[in-house]
Amino acid sequence: MEHSFSITATLKVDKEGICFLNGKRIELLKQIILTGSILAASKKMDMSYQQAWTYVQQMNLLSPHPMVIRKRGGVNGGGAEITRFGQDMIERYEQIKTVHEANVRQLGDELLFSIF
Amino acid sequence: MEHSFSITATLKVDKEGICFLNGKRIELLKQIILTGSILAASKKMDMSYQQAWTYVQQMNLLSPHPMVIRKRGGVNGGGAEITRFGQDMIERYEQIKTVHEANVRQLGDELLFSIF
Repeated sequence: MEHSFSITATLKVDKEGICFLNGKRIELLKQIILTGSILAASKKMDMSYQQAWTYVQQMNLLSPHPMVIRKRGGVNGGGAEITRFGQDMIERYEQIKTVHEANVRQLGDELLFSIF
Repeated sequence: MEHSFSITATLKVDKEGICFLNGKRIELLKQIILTGSILAASKKMDMSYQQAWTYVQQMNLLSPHPMVIRKRGGVNGGGAEITRFGQDMIERYEQIKTVHEANVRQLGDELLFSIF
């Protein structure tokens, strides 16, 4: 492409106008799986613990089933894990994200190549 | 649907990371066509003239061809009109927006009905 235009469309799942899931929250859930804690996940993502915790609370509150469970105590001084339902949500979100991005790319090609 | 989740994905055309077109800017262009002036269009959209003028300048700057032309003087004390190129952009943006929204709706149904 000679031009430098790009088309994006950021996917977001809301419940009654409040953000439930988006790319950042899914990434946070994946980092919680990888690190086993909300604090470690927040550090990986360069966000404050407070912000990460707010996201987790919002997701759990809006979800029909809990997505993140905190485990207090233990050798690591407490941690967090993603429920089976949360893992399903990550998988399905990423499935539709892949299709979504392909759709947007195709629409972008149609728009941009037809004009420039 | 029994649940109250909704999926959105806001379409945006960038040039090197700077917003060129989005839903609001397209609406602004359409209001300029309807009203014949940037000031009147900004009022219709509840935005400041300064904001509308900034959007217009950015679009003209990033576009390969001018999209909005200001006409100084005249009986209305100056106005603005959308070029043929600008009109084409509006049409094409709305065409892909329609397809995009249908795509997102379908993905939303797949995600939400499979889970809730």
